[in-house]
Amino acid sequence: MRNLPDRVWRLPRQEDDEAAGEGFGRILALSDGVFAIAMTLLILDIAVPAMTDSDKMPHVLLHLWPRYLAYLLSFLVISRFWVIHRQAFALIARVDPALIWLNLLLLLFIAFLPFPTAVVGAHNGSTAAAVLYAVAVCLTGASSAAYWWYASGRGKLLRPDVPRGQIRAMRARSLSGPVLFALTVPVAAFFPYVAEALWFLAFPLARMSFVLFSGEEPDEAG
Amino acid sequence: MRNLPDRVWRLPRQEDDEAAGEGFGRILALSDGVFAIAMTLLILDIAVPAMTDSDKMPHVLLHLWPRYLAYLLSFLVISRFWVIHRQAFALIARVDPALIWLNLLLLLFIAFLPFPTAVVGAHNGSTAAAVLYAVAVCLTGASSAAYWWYASGRGKLLRPDVPRGQIRAMRARSLSGPVLFALTVPVAAFFPYVAEALWFLAFPLARMSFVLFSGEEPDEAG
Amino acid sequence: MRNLPDRVWRLPRQEDDEAAGEGFGRILALSDGVFAIAMTLLILDIAVPAMTDSDKMPHVLLHLWPRYLAYLLSFLVISRFWVIHRQAFALIARVDPALIWLNLLLLLFIAFLPFPTAVVGAHNGSTAAAVLYAVAVCLTGASSAAYWWYASGRGKLLRPDVPRGQIRAMRARSLSGPVLFALTVPVAAFFPYVAEALWFLAFPLARMSFVLFSGEEPDEAG
Amino acid sequence: MRNLPDRVWRLPRQEDDEAAGEGFGRILALSDGVFAIAMTLLILDIAVPAMTDSDKMPHVLLHLWPRYLAYLLSFLVISRFWVIHRQAFALIARVDPALIWLNLLLLLFIAFLPFPTAVVGAHNGSTAAAVLYAVAVCLTGASSAAYWWYASGRGKLLRPDVPRGQIRAMRARSLSGPVLFALTVPVAAFFPYVAEALWFLAFPLARMSFVLFSGEEPDEAG
Repeated sequence: MRNLPDRVWRLPRQEDDEAAGEGFGRILALSDGVFAIAMTLLILDIAVPAMTDSDKMPHVLLHLWPRYLAYLLSFLVISRFWVIHRQAFALIARVDPALIWLNLLLLLFIAFLPFPTAVVGAHNGSTAAAVLYAVAVCLTGASSAAYWWYASGRGKLLRPDVPRGQIRAMRARSLSGPVLFALTVPVAAFFPYVAEALWFLAFPLARMSFVLFSGEEPDEAG
Repeated sequence: MRNLPDRVWRLPRQEDDEAAGEGFGRILALSDGVFAIAMTLLILDIAVPAMTDSDKMPHVLLHLWPRYLAYLLSFLVISRFWVIHRQAFALIARVDPALIWLNLLLLLFIAFLPFPTAVVGAHNGSTAAAVLYAVAVCLTGASSAAYWWYASGRGKLLRPDVPRGQIRAMRARSLSGPVLFALTVPVAAFFPYVAEALWFLAFPLARMSFVLFSGEEPDEAG
Repeated sequence: MRNLPDRVWRLPRQEDDEAAGEGFGRILALSDGVFAIAMTLLILDIAVPAMTDSDKMPHVLLHLWPRYLAYLLSFLVISRFWVIHRQAFALIARVDPALIWLNLLLLLFIAFLPFPTAVVGAHNGSTAAAVLYAVAVCLTGASSAAYWWYASGRGKLLRPDVPRGQIRAMRARSLSGPVLFALTVPVAAFFPYVAEALWFLAFPLARMSFVLFSGEEPDEAG
Repeated sequence: MRNLPDRVWRLPRQEDDEAAGEGFGRILALSDGVFAIAMTLLILDIAVPAMTDSDKMPHVLLHLWPRYLAYLLSFLVISRFWVIHRQAFALIARVDPALIWLNLLLLLFIAFLPFPTAVVGAHNGSTAAAVLYAVAVCLTGASSAAYWWYASGRGKLLRPDVPRGQIRAMRARSLSGPVLFALTVPVAAFFPYVAEALWFLAFPLARMSFVLFSGEEPDEAG
């Protein structure tokens, strides 16, 4: 019994690995489910008071524009994480318990995003709302980077034929999101509207950083 | 570095294509998830105040008829987009990043539909509500047409054995929805109830336009 | 063009059949999604006012018992429809457009059930609420019977090896639900609590009717 | 007809077994759907009043910490049940109606968890809320244990190659959760904050109990 602590952390791992021998089916099913639901729940943040006067309806509907923008932004953000998730798991050959829990950590943050989206949509121009949003997406991005760095690094879970250049490019890209959103935290604390504009720029910027890094070894990428 | 812009748009495409080699599994899983959730969230727009007096319950429940109608209409609309999505993706042989993002654009609008449904249900007879609904379904239909035109045209993603007549018929049908809903926008701005009646007619009309176009080359369809 | 009406209803059918050649994957994915979401949305009907005094919490929580009961009942009802759906589609060999739309009709009613559940939970003892619930489940059961009668009858969609006795037993069972709930409509109009007790009895009754009918031809069932 | 009661309970079982011959696909699809939705609905319990003054936003957002904690805890709890569910069903070779209904019982409790989560998040420090939460998770754990004990015991549904040591370890682990949460019920009735701290400890404790039991027969586990 004196070697308990060691076995506590080692044995379940073996047992989990056996059970996981059947592939990713359920991990991807759960992930796709959470992604789809988080995307769709965003719409619940947009609502019109039932009492609204009919004459004021056009004004009320147009006045909701910060919520439409927040819906669009968060839908794009979650879509982007899903596209990356799909690319990453297409390269992963097997799972281990650490990857499963890192993936659940990502889902924890994905499922959380409708809340900051609602806050930003309802309190447009609030610095606290903008900071909350930047921090939430930054943490989501960090957990998205975490599972990829683990799977492609210490976990050694990738298919053997994945070129090193692609791994490195995807690592760089996985960092570009959280770094950019972390940089917007101080911006959001003073100029929430500027931060929101920067968030929409995150998509072309992430793509560009991906190309810059994957382009360093054109021979390996081919 | 002078050829950066070109590589920015070309390289990721290759990388995405490789990852997508495994087929559509996750794209369809995410899509079916969003369709199913959007359908089911529609019911959240129908609610009875908890304080309602027991005697008034029959009246209150019957008084909700515009919400029942809005639920029925939007369920039919989303079902129709799903049926078309299923037919279209059964003919698509492979995906590329543009198709993935066009599909996500469709899901963005599908997930949005519970909002105009709620507005129309709660503000029956409001012209602004009717215009919002017509515009939302029109945009959804346009994005549904967009992925099919891309996949069957510039993207060259269809299976080689799909007859040209069927492609053309499905292109015509994909336009019939957005065109019809676009035509109801001015109607909705003046006669919201007439617009609602026209929306319910959209289903037999779409079917008819499909047959008219697919019928032009009966020899290819066989 | 004089034979248009005929072709309007015949041609799309062929085209749909081709597209559906790939099996049921997406139909079952959408169905399981709607079933799962309807089950899980039921919980949104149970809520505690945020302002509740700490001393009154036990009372408030216990006072919610009609909502707990409504949750339990509707979860069982939806589960039962899912179990039947799973059994039925395991015997169906191919789909046609009519089956797809009959299945969507079932999903329309499944997705509707959280609403009458909320009304019954919030207005326990209201006759109007009880009638609404009985009618909603009756219609759901009728659409569940409809797809099975169509698939096993005019649609000729079953696998050839399904014994006739089993088809007949499942037809009888599919009717037992809607008939029982239809019978409770007048009961609910006068004695809502009695109706609720009968609904819980529906489960053993449905099972018994299934056995009585399937037992008539023991030689075919073996 | 005198042997009716016996046939009532035996015949449907055969019929269900045949239908279930196709494997677990839909059972796992429904389960993953309910798990994913329950996880994602948790976020609906966190909301900011739309009227909040912009100056008070930081205070209001920080003041929600009990809800963030409740979200984190319930996400971990549901994740844990999902991980166990995935491991268990990877060892199960076939299903029977009893397993299907025991699994639906688990889903009933999983789908219920957002409610006690909302109560604990909104009424931090309330003993009634803490007792409700402990009882709900305890019942969920008991139903999670029930399906595993049935499948590995009387149901004889496991794959033949599963080592006995692993079965026993997973049985012990399946009990550790409900037992621990049952023990916290009296704690919650007097010291709700202590109970909440214990719940977070449940995860390392469950893992430890699993190792202690699986470690008793190291030769069979290998």
